[in-house]
Amino acid sequence: MKAALFEKAGLVSVKEVEKPHLQEDDDVIIKIVRTCVCGSDLWSYAHGDNKESHSVNDGHEALGIVEEIGTAITSVKPGYFVIVPFTHGCGECDACRSGFDGTCDRHQGSTNWSKGFQSEYVRFHSANWALVKVPGQPSDYTEGMIKSLLTLADVMPTGYHAARCAHVEKGDKVVVIGDGAVGQCAVIAAKMRGAAQIVLMSRHDDRQEMALQSGATAVVAERGEEGIAKVREILGGGADAALECVGTEAAFDQALGVLHNGGRIGYVGVPHYNNRAIGSTFAQNISIAGGSASVTTYDKQLLLKAVLDAEIDPGRVFTETYQLADINQAYADMQARKTIKSMVVL
Amino acid sequence: MKAALFEKAGLVSVKEVEKPHLQEDDDVIIKIVRTCVCGSDLWSYAHGDNKESHSVNDGHEALGIVEEIGTAITSVKPGYFVIVPFTHGCGECDACRSGFDGTCDRHQGSTNWSKGFQSEYVRFHSANWALVKVPGQPSDYTEGMIKSLLTLADVMPTGYHAARCAHVEKGDKVVVIGDGAVGQCAVIAAKMRGAAQIVLMSRHDDRQEMALQSGATAVVAERGEEGIAKVREILGGGADAALECVGTEAAFDQALGVLHNGGRIGYVGVPHYNNRAIGSTFAQNISIAGGSASVTTYDKQLLLKAVLDAEIDPGRVFTETYQLADINQAYADMQARKTIKSMVVL
Repeated sequence: MKAALFEKAGLVSVKEVEKPHLQEDDDVIIKIVRTCVCGSDLWSYAHGDNKESHSVNDGHEALGIVEEIGTAITSVKPGYFVIVPFTHGCGECDACRSGFDGTCDRHQGSTNWSKGFQSEYVRFHSANWALVKVPGQPSDYTEGMIKSLLTLADVMPTGYHAARCAHVEKGDKVVVIGDGAVGQCAVIAAKMRGAAQIVLMSRHDDRQEMALQSGATAVVAERGEEGIAKVREILGGGADAALECVGTEAAFDQALGVLHNGGRIGYVGVPHYNNRAIGSTFAQNISIAGGSASVTTYDKQLLLKAVLDAEIDPGRVFTETYQLADINQAYADMQARKTIKSMVVL
Repeated sequence: MKAALFEKAGLVSVKEVEKPHLQEDDDVIIKIVRTCVCGSDLWSYAHGDNKESHSVNDGHEALGIVEEIGTAITSVKPGYFVIVPFTHGCGECDACRSGFDGTCDRHQGSTNWSKGFQSEYVRFHSANWALVKVPGQPSDYTEGMIKSLLTLADVMPTGYHAARCAHVEKGDKVVVIGDGAVGQCAVIAAKMRGAAQIVLMSRHDDRQEMALQSGATAVVAERGEEGIAKVREILGGGADAALECVGTEAAFDQALGVLHNGGRIGYVGVPHYNNRAIGSTFAQNISIAGGSASVTTYDKQLLLKAVLDAEIDPGRVFTETYQLADINQAYADMQARKTIKSMVVL
């Protein structure tokens, strides 16, 4: 069969290679109908790093027809039209059950990522749950619909993931950083979730126009401090959510800059910068949130009532009581862990 | 009046100082009834850093009686019994309106934090919205209830903030890191939000016992890899949420270790370690979440239907189409930004 092979930076060629065959019970062989190039494929194409010459390329998005199935496959049959995802979720682990099959607990790291889809056929492992059936056959659809179906292998779910991770909800003010395919899909996702205002940061006329057609309410061409000021002017303040769809530190800083305090970043651009916390949490789809508590809000909304109704008894943390004159003992005992928390009576 | 003054590491003494007076229209002078020592006060008490001799201490949690009010104050009158929060939210900015008054947009950084509550009187600035009225007078309440009301100035809302930031919801498996006052309150908060399992990591019998009385379903004394393994054994897998109530890197790593992929960290221990991303986002209460998208889940749940119903048209990102034989051009054009995304037909 024919397959695209990475030769060196700037050169991908098509060569004749052996057709893949079933190896495991849960393998499926798929005849590719449409595939595409991902922004992440371009990192090696542009720089040549992390790639051996003549390795199968990283294409990982496709529509295809099921050709052969392993003995454990019950979800699809030969002839089915399928979306072939870039991941291999099992559908049963904690991560998959909580809707994070992009980082399935059973397929850690690279074993969960697809590759080699820029070929006539591909072997798709752990296929039973991960493949997505499409009704009918490719010939039943317009070319425009086929293109939209192809986005469902990666970029549209990735844009949606940014919006979901940032908890975009009805009425939100949202900023999308990045005007590539994922950024465009993030605009669509923000609109699906009911955002009231969607600002795309983009310097390209055609991409600005596309985003405005998809639901963006404004575009900002400026970057850095100037871009942040422009966004805040348009929104009349900080954004509720920022969708970072690039993967550079500058893009992340842009996302931080446009938010009001308490804002939310959903980031899906694979981080190409060093940052321990972000790197490891991205690989595990871990969300991190915190800061100073909202004392007034929580007390007025629910905590004062819960205390007065004796539903909760947090006061038990005060295991010792002191007079103000004995304040140093109050500190010393708490430091020595003789009391969980020292109360002072005046 | 009498006030606690920081003298040096290990020594806080009580001295006679000038009673505070109204300075701004939105000031309130409060006669303190109860105050306490916070874990964060102990950092300077133990190490002496960032503190000048004879500076007023950092006490920032109190119950009090309103003594005098500025001309702009409409929410309380002299004689009112109030919870005095450690923050000064305005109640009107984007941050406050979204329930993040702990990092009010109008009171950046230290201007939003209270200090000097370990005194007979305190001047509380920006008081109109931030103070929380309690019905009646202190004498109307048992000492146990008074203690619980005092926790509402900081530690109980802070424990609740950890649970809110981690989006703890009904049925969740939750791990609490830290058995101090905030950790104990985080256990209470996780139970309030309906967690099915709550594991406290603690090495102290009395604190373990207290947490079990408040709703913890298990305690784990081990730390590090051993502690993580024990938690996972108890939960039959990874946790949905980890509430980090300490502020050390080890505690944060513990939180990361107990989660399944896609899990959520709520952290409220002021970070005492270097990490740019965490440091800056903590100060602004920014949440960060992201990773590989959940292609299969999103496609099956909603995206495939949205495409087939023509509600969304993400396929427009494919602005050029190529044959497999022309794959290199597909890469080159995308790299040169001649197309947003290259589709390949087979």
